[in-house]
Amino acid sequence: MDYKQSGVDIDAGNETVRRIKGLARTTFTPGVLSSIGSFGGLFRLGSGTRDPVLVSSADGVGTKLKVAFLTGRHDTVGQDLVNHCVNDILVQGALPLFFLDYLATGTLSPEVAGRVVEGVATACRENGCALIGGETAEMPGFYASGEYDIAGFIVGVVEHDRVITGARLRVGDVLIGLRSSGLHTNGYSLARAIVFEHLGLTVDTEVSELGCTIGEELLRIHRSYLPLVRPLLDAGLVKGLAHITGGGITENLPRVLPPGVAAIIDKSTWTPSAVFRFLQRSGGVPDADMYRAFNMGIGMIVGCAPDDQARVLTMLQSAGESRATVVGKIVAGDPGVIYGSL
Amino acid sequence: MDYKQSGVDIDAGNETVRRIKGLARTTFTPGVLSSIGSFGGLFRLGSGTRDPVLVSSADGVGTKLKVAFLTGRHDTVGQDLVNHCVNDILVQGALPLFFLDYLATGTLSPEVAGRVVEGVATACRENGCALIGGETAEMPGFYASGEYDIAGFIVGVVEHDRVITGARLRVGDVLIGLRSSGLHTNGYSLARAIVFEHLGLTVDTEVSELGCTIGEELLRIHRSYLPLVRPLLDAGLVKGLAHITGGGITENLPRVLPPGVAAIIDKSTWTPSAVFRFLQRSGGVPDADMYRAFNMGIGMIVGCAPDDQARVLTMLQSAGESRATVVGKIVAGDPGVIYGSL
Repeated sequence: MDYKQSGVDIDAGNETVRRIKGLARTTFTPGVLSSIGSFGGLFRLGSGTRDPVLVSSADGVGTKLKVAFLTGRHDTVGQDLVNHCVNDILVQGALPLFFLDYLATGTLSPEVAGRVVEGVATACRENGCALIGGETAEMPGFYASGEYDIAGFIVGVVEHDRVITGARLRVGDVLIGLRSSGLHTNGYSLARAIVFEHLGLTVDTEVSELGCTIGEELLRIHRSYLPLVRPLLDAGLVKGLAHITGGGITENLPRVLPPGVAAIIDKSTWTPSAVFRFLQRSGGVPDADMYRAFNMGIGMIVGCAPDDQARVLTMLQSAGESRATVVGKIVAGDPGVIYGSL
Repeated sequence: MDYKQSGVDIDAGNETVRRIKGLARTTFTPGVLSSIGSFGGLFRLGSGTRDPVLVSSADGVGTKLKVAFLTGRHDTVGQDLVNHCVNDILVQGALPLFFLDYLATGTLSPEVAGRVVEGVATACRENGCALIGGETAEMPGFYASGEYDIAGFIVGVVEHDRVITGARLRVGDVLIGLRSSGLHTNGYSLARAIVFEHLGLTVDTEVSELGCTIGEELLRIHRSYLPLVRPLLDAGLVKGLAHITGGGITENLPRVLPPGVAAIIDKSTWTPSAVFRFLQRSGGVPDADMYRAFNMGIGMIVGCAPDDQARVLTMLQSAGESRATVVGKIVAGDPGVIYGSL
């Protein structure tokens, strides 16, 4: 009995590492001291920060991966992964430094692994984040044929006195919603149940009100808010940020509310993207579940002082985001979201 | 249709997060600024390092998890995960700062997830590493009932001028082997094929030459080499370090060899642990495959100058490692491992 007979193909692993090395190299920034293949990824922090706070996050893509499997399109989920992580540290005020990925599969296809990491590398380049390490695990008997799971890990940095926590949010502050590009990476178990089980669609079904196939809609890439939010952070205009992921506005916004304040969110201030209207109508999903499972068209919420509202909206507009709008405000109360009128 | 009907149990998720928060808190070190529940984990680097290089690594536990599933013992694989990561950055000279985990499962059991993270937290405390974040993903349809996958991400720090790369290894340097505690986290697909398929054992089968059940043997915790190697690093005695993981000595040692040198490893200098002799005999595995799939009893190799050999061995002995021994030396040649005589 030898190693390959037990289901592990070291040569496929080496071929995968070769492909990944080439992709990773395209993401390197000046801080990178090592190449993939070292035991650890080396990143020199440098002297750009006086009192550096490292902000890190780990995430997956969830069952959005099933849509990638169904469509055979593997080069977007890596972008979802990176952008999700970038947003998770951005809400603490941090800019990305480096990223590592974990890819686990039953039988390793260097081709598919290469596509996945291509997506990771693309988004790393777009966000100025170096891909400096990762793990590709071949685990026979763990994943169905052609399937895999991925996880990502990001580290960013912020000056200690510039960390954003939401603690400075006060009664009267305004909440500005930034549009999502679609479902991002949340609510896919519910969305898939509605689309594929309840409606019996396939990924190739054209849905006229979406203007594309349902597969294309469900694979839309999780948006990175770094280009929009970074200028606001640099200008010191941000008091709190919430990334609207699993749990929706209902569960994510309270994570940044200090004691004694609640958030009123006025649903009439924006129209949920077509995909959410389609899913709600098709599945007969109660409103409360929609706002807990999905981002409903708002992927990031920026809290700022009322005096800064006009300036923030202008800056967002000049960064290309004309649809940003006030969706809520901070009121007195126990931390939580109240859906009501402004 | 609501969210829970689609297979995602947000309440089980919240209960899991509650358990994890408590466990994570036991690992906190002075650098930790945030608690689990923030979007990102916050770690203040402080002024202890003049020119900090961040060293990071991502890893999984591989199919060792299958042994955990078979035995129903879930509190050790988290220790494997952390210790593996600690060793991967240790070989670059870095000491751990913080850790994040990723746990993915089909149907979330707060009980099992709690056990897994208990192992993570235990090893984090032992290694002085703060567990500051992670992701617990419920992915219906991805994992068999009762199964899960885990990945870990570590960040450590080392002074720029103290990074260990192996580049200083020269002809004549000696290679000292540190014993492993068992298979660590590699070669499990081959080991399981031999033990469970070929021999038809169950995890509860007592194997007399191992002095325990095969399940206990296969679950032995991946050893952290931090307590042994840290004093050697502090004393400046280490020129190169190789963590013997997937690929064995054959593939891991060359990763730290500079151009123009090879490593001779003399297999007669140590006796592989009983489990490797048992697996090789039972499976009729060729020697070359054994040394590529398994660590064969040596989990870490330390390269040092011949003049420092006695001091290194004495320091290892006073740290409790009496079985450390010279297993090889550096010779002229192309980077690679030659199994021969010293």
